[in-house]
Order: sequence, then C-alpha cells, then structure tokens
Amino acid sequence: MPRWDPRARDRLRAAALELFVEHGYDNATVTQITERAGLTRRTFSRYFTDKRDVLFAGSEQLPAAMSDAVRRADATLPPFLALLAALVDTGELFVDLVPHAAQRRAVIASSSELRERERTKLAAVAEALAEALRERGATASAATLLAQVGIAVFLAAFERWTDQPEHTDFASRVREAATELAASLAPVAGLATMPEHS
Amino acid sequence: MPRWDPRARDRLRAAALELFVEHGYDNATVTQITERAGLTRRTFSRYFTDKRDVLFAGSEQLPAAMSDAVRRADATLPPFLALLAALVDTGELFVDLVPHAAQRRAVIASSSELRERERTKLAAVAEALAEALRERGATASAATLLAQVGIAVFLAAFERWTDQPEHTDFASRVREAATELAASLAPVAGLATMPEHS
Repeated sequence: MPRWDPRARDRLRAAALELFVEHGYDNATVTQITERAGLTRRTFSRYFTDKRDVLFAGSEQLPAAMSDAVRRADATLPPFLALLAALVDTGELFVDLVPHAAQRRAVIASSSELRERERTKLAAVAEALAEALRERGATASAATLLAQVGIAVFLAAFERWTDQPEHTDFASRVREAATELAASLAPVAGLATMPEHS
Repeated sequence: MPRWDPRARDRLRAAALELFVEHGYDNATVTQITERAGLTRRTFSRYFTDKRDVLFAGSEQLPAAMSDAVRRADATLPPFLALLAALVDTGELFVDLVPHAAQRRAVIASSSELRERERTKLAAVAEALAEALRERGATASAATLLAQVGIAVFLAAFERWTDQPEHTDFASRVREAATELAASLAPVAGLATMPEHS
C-alpha cells in the first residue's frame, strides 16, 4: 500500500461513520474501525490522530483556506459576492466528504462534545472571513455580520448539495441559498419603522 | 435588604465584571466580588450560582423568550420581519445589561471556555428560532438559515446599541443592521451564474 492512499483513508472514514451511527460515537473504538475497514491500527494512525479526527481532519486549514479565497476574489466584487465566490471555491475542496456528509451531520448532532467542536471550528472560520472582509474595506461590524451570514449560507448550501443523490454543482446550491436569503430579507427595505409590539 | 433587590444584583454584576477585567476571569473569586460590592456571600448566592452565572444568568430563558416572540408576531408578517420584531421585543428585556455589555463581551472573548458557553447558548436560541419559523411555514432549510442570520443581526444590533453612549432605541439598531445586510445581499439577485474562479 502506498504511503498516502486516499482509498485507505476513505475506507477508514466510511467504516468509522458506519460504526458511529450503529453503536454511538462514544462506544465505537479505533480497533472496531480498523477491523471493519480491513486495515491496521498503524494505517489508521497514518491518516487520523484519533476517532474524533475522522470527523474533523483538515478543519484546521479551513479558516485560512476560506479567507484566502476571499482575498483572491476579483477586487471589483462587492463584499458579499466575494464571500460567495470564496464559499464555492472552498466547498469544492470537500468533494470527497460528500458521500459521508449526512452521516457525519447525524453523528455530530448526537453528541454535545462534537457539536461544541463543530461550533468552535465554524467560529474560527467566521473570524478569519471577517478579517478578510475588513481588508476589502468592510467596517468591523459589517464584516462580522457578513461572515456569520456567509457561514450560514455555506452550511445551507452544503446540506442541500450533499442531500441530493447526484451531488453536482455546489455553485448552484450556494447561489440558490443566497438568492433565497436575499429575497427573504428584501422586505426590510420597505420598513419605515420596525413593527413595535406586534 | 428586600429578598430580591435588583440594585444588589446589579452591584454584584458590576463588581464581578470589574474584577474579571482587572484580574482575569479565572483569577477573580466570589469572595473578591462580594467584598468589592460590599455584600455577603449569602447575598451573592441569592442571585447567582457561581461566578460564571454572573455572565449567563437568565440565558436559559432566551430560547423560549425569542421563539415565543416569533410566535406572537403578526401572522401576516413575512418570516424575516417576524424574526426582526421578535429580536426587538427580546432585546428590550436586556436593558439592565446594557451598561455592562462591552465589559461582558471583553471577558467572554478572553476565555475559550466562556466563548464555548456563549456559542452553546446562541446555538440553542438558533434552534428554537428555527422551530418557530417552521411553524410559520418556512422550510427546514430556510428556517435554519434565517434563524442563524437573525442571531447575527441581533448580535450586530446589540453591539451597536450598547456601544452608543446614550443606549436608546434598540429597534432602530436592529432595523439598521438588517437594512445594511439586505443591501449587501441585494447584488445576488443580479447573478446569472456564480463567479467561478475569480
């Protein structure tokens, strides 16, 4: 087996997610994962530090990957379009996670520790996105708000993308979620005053 | 001293936040807090379970308070306007926290444990808001997205409100943040296709 084999990594990931769903995340062991994948513990250690890492491997690169994509976006784009372009670029990095995405979401939803870890990861992404948006001229307040909205759009688009059987065209799912959101927000423009106590 | 004295609670909160800022959250003790406030530990225990509770007291009611405000909003309002009306109603419950809000934010930002707790609190609010929006007819995907956007608008508006010296008119700050966000998102409507790799 070669030193870095995406198929081995993928077999381990698939086995781990199956076991997490069947036995619960807390009960599944690395030994069970390697047995089900037909691979050794040594191979497991080559790709993942522990079972939690199966769910979060690579996420430490996400803040820099997403914010660099904002920096690379065409300088003439308004901030939110630069953000959407960055979401599309970054989402495509996760194409190998797509077959496992629904299972991964279910496993994370089942554990408060994992939900916390996921939120911590997303908060770091939001902070990095906000910084990149400030560099493009957004105020601190607008940058933070847009970054959080960007994360929400990304999550919605990613879920729609991975829930489709064909998993094609992440860019369309991003555009779709963003367009729906913009339409939902449009009535705000007509507000002379906020509804007070409705 | 009466059994429930908002002034005592407020003195304890002010003393605690001062000490958290001066000595760091981890180093400040309940004894120091009560000494600075000129009150007893017994009085402290009447209002707060521990020092962390000074920062989060009442937050367990927030998911129900916010989602009930969405349910109470005029049935003819589109989902996002119902959400904004709910944010305004709920924000006004926090008027006694306004003088301490900037200090509270700084203390929370200083500790990963507190940031985690704050995120957990906001996630529970987002979940409750999404449920109330689904009850108003939003799809699951749209409800989750709008709820997260609502939280982001609330945080932006609350920060602007509490950063002003006069702290008036939370409704205007909500409308302002929402209007700016809607304007930022408006260019999406003109997108025929997503910018691919800009």
